[in-house]
Amino acid sequence: MLQALREEVYKCNMLLPENDLVKMTSGNVSGRDPQTNLVVIKPSGVAYEKLSPENMVIVDLDGNVVEGDLTPSIDTETHLVVYRARPDVFGMVHTHSTYATSFAVLGQPIPPVTTTCGLIGGGVPLGRFACFGGETIGHEVVNVIGDSYAVIMQSHGVFTIGHSASHATRVAVEVEEMAKIAHLAMLRGKPIILTPEQIREVSSGYVNDYGQKK
Amino acid sequence: MLQALREEVYKCNMLLPENDLVKMTSGNVSGRDPQTNLVVIKPSGVAYEKLSPENMVIVDLDGNVVEGDLTPSIDTETHLVVYRARPDVFGMVHTHSTYATSFAVLGQPIPPVTTTCGLIGGGVPLGRFACFGGETIGHEVVNVIGDSYAVIMQSHGVFTIGHSASHATRVAVEVEEMAKIAHLAMLRGKPIILTPEQIREVSSGYVNDYGQKK
Amino acid sequence: MLQALREEVYKCNMLLPENDLVKMTSGNVSGRDPQTNLVVIKPSGVAYEKLSPENMVIVDLDGNVVEGDLTPSIDTETHLVVYRARPDVFGMVHTHSTYATSFAVLGQPIPPVTTTCGLIGGGVPLGRFACFGGETIGHEVVNVIGDSYAVIMQSHGVFTIGHSASHATRVAVEVEEMAKIAHLAMLRGKPIILTPEQIREVSSGYVNDYGQKK
Amino acid sequence: MLQALREEVYKCNMLLPENDLVKMTSGNVSGRDPQTNLVVIKPSGVAYEKLSPENMVIVDLDGNVVEGDLTPSIDTETHLVVYRARPDVFGMVHTHSTYATSFAVLGQPIPPVTTTCGLIGGGVPLGRFACFGGETIGHEVVNVIGDSYAVIMQSHGVFTIGHSASHATRVAVEVEEMAKIAHLAMLRGKPIILTPEQIREVSSGYVNDYGQKK
Repeated sequence: MLQALREEVYKCNMLLPENDLVKMTSGNVSGRDPQTNLVVIKPSGVAYEKLSPENMVIVDLDGNVVEGDLTPSIDTETHLVVYRARPDVFGMVHTHSTYATSFAVLGQPIPPVTTTCGLIGGGVPLGRFACFGGETIGHEVVNVIGDSYAVIMQSHGVFTIGHSASHATRVAVEVEEMAKIAHLAMLRGKPIILTPEQIREVSSGYVNDYGQKK
Repeated sequence: MLQALREEVYKCNMLLPENDLVKMTSGNVSGRDPQTNLVVIKPSGVAYEKLSPENMVIVDLDGNVVEGDLTPSIDTETHLVVYRARPDVFGMVHTHSTYATSFAVLGQPIPPVTTTCGLIGGGVPLGRFACFGGETIGHEVVNVIGDSYAVIMQSHGVFTIGHSASHATRVAVEVEEMAKIAHLAMLRGKPIILTPEQIREVSSGYVNDYGQKK
Repeated sequence: MLQALREEVYKCNMLLPENDLVKMTSGNVSGRDPQTNLVVIKPSGVAYEKLSPENMVIVDLDGNVVEGDLTPSIDTETHLVVYRARPDVFGMVHTHSTYATSFAVLGQPIPPVTTTCGLIGGGVPLGRFACFGGETIGHEVVNVIGDSYAVIMQSHGVFTIGHSASHATRVAVEVEEMAKIAHLAMLRGKPIILTPEQIREVSSGYVNDYGQKK
Repeated sequence: MLQALREEVYKCNMLLPENDLVKMTSGNVSGRDPQTNLVVIKPSGVAYEKLSPENMVIVDLDGNVVEGDLTPSIDTETHLVVYRARPDVFGMVHTHSTYATSFAVLGQPIPPVTTTCGLIGGGVPLGRFACFGGETIGHEVVNVIGDSYAVIMQSHGVFTIGHSASHATRVAVEVEEMAKIAHLAMLRGKPIILTPEQIREVSSGYVNDYGQKK
């Protein structure tokens, strides 16, 4: 069932440790099937090297397990709140990636300082503290994320969204890298913030000119 | 003898270099068998790539080698002091992991700044300087660690404890990551400290809701 | 066609992730054939693990694809502006490497602080902001780079040039490492800047005495 | 000829990239044979993945190549000056490791802040600037290193010595790690410096109690 989406979500989950965005079993990626609205998500607390396309868990938008023997990610309800509120979102990622989280524990958004912010939608806004695992944190993500593809939650970590699991994963990688560059620069001075026009220009470059034509 | 525990302790030792917590031959993990009170521990000064379940050393609580041709870790007495004082502890880890040790050389505890502190028991307290290898450092660990699963020792490094070797290893990974995030944030401002109630909430989340049901 | 150059440019592209200079599909290396003036360059937005000598794209100096099924790098026009203006340049690299880019987002050049600056041509000058993908950024590279083998572009990243793709790649690695060392030192004090005479001395050492004689 | 020493020096050279102490072709390890006083050293400018025990170069104490088709390391003369002046030294390592070099570009010694300084001989003293590749830098190493196993040279990098190539390599790894921990701590406060008595105590622990008995 949903074999192609299982493969994509599995591969995206594996990109989290490959890009050094997670420790041990933390972090998770999900993807939503446009036909059925079913969501494929990582199981809870399973080591990355034991993941496979087959042990991803399939849930419906109400959180019922439709296929899979394992308990889905503790953050499943958070993903589902976002999918229910945002019909345009088909992929979602959660990490505690180090540099982005250093902004989260200061209660500061991540400023748009590099041209790669065109992949993120500009800077990364900050949501309020809410314990992981419930609906509350999902609603806060929805309320705060706005037109961005990413949000950091106070004292916690990063959530990214996208047109697909792969898209949201790319955003998660770029958020951490921009956070690291911003951090380094902020230690030595005041980084130059991209203007709204520059953000539009680089966003357009990534959307219209980058990559292979389908 | 104790084959399952040998395998677990071996795997946990290998997680130290895999998670970049150690250099060369430093660091060690032990586990205690609940039936016999025997302790399986890494041999001293052996390269990680030469470790195997078979060359782990088995000692009794008095430090006599019960099985094994190699000299056990120089920190064995420290582990044994903790096991004798804390019948609830069945696994222990020692590292000099970089960011946590940067707190140790400043003589500062690590503040609870991320939701993952729920895995650690809150912040990480600081013990006084004592040379490695003796009983003194073990008693200081016992006196200072309290309800936490981790302690840092001044000018030295980290000791973590747990319900198993795997548990203590997970804690050692999370201590280093929280130390890194705290360090980064402290360079740019004052990180938000989790309240005791928030720590209880995230701890309960990890204990009760996280992972697969046994 | 140009099989040896394809191999070299492919290998140099792979050195970017191997040296942790790029994330996901960002970054690119090109090389120019001295006989034909044709340029071999990485395709746009293709994952590094899917690159091969065969899927590198060959373009002429006007940007026409001469061989290859894929769209060339979005930065191709930038490379071509440089090749047209600098007949002495036969290799070029672009990255967003982290520490060098932290200087770029502050609008600061990278100072020559280590003996390895002999491989770079001294410090790394700074060019003004221009969106990626067009001729403007190429002209800025040409105008600013002067006698150096490297330039950083404001809010963006690094461009390096060389006598070959391999040479420019070596420079890109050394730029990031010198940027990291400079950054670390600048957090604790004022790094000692190499004098012009010292820069000449170390440059001469690398050019005349280093490596195997051909 | 000297096959065992070739193997040891080769393995130690490979530990430099494995421990992230070098970039591209920089860095080198040598070892001296106690019987013949011949020195085995890395060839100049050869990629680490192309090194083998067979392509290490053997030179005598005057720098004549005794066996090998390749040009020896550009730092060979520096190693030989040290071997001639210090009959107790049988291994030597040179790196530009990042954190240690950040002290070198500030013109600051590395303070003894962790118990692992017992492996280094305490803190790491600082030598004056001298271009790589000549005798001058070797004499400065000899003059400054004193009772330590390591020295950093201004604006340049690290030299370590030992009773064997393996010993000097271990020291090189620990120097970089202690430099990183000292750097991190110095950004947030004043690290506690180990007293001479504490240094003696931890040095004795590593020499007398650590590792397997021969």
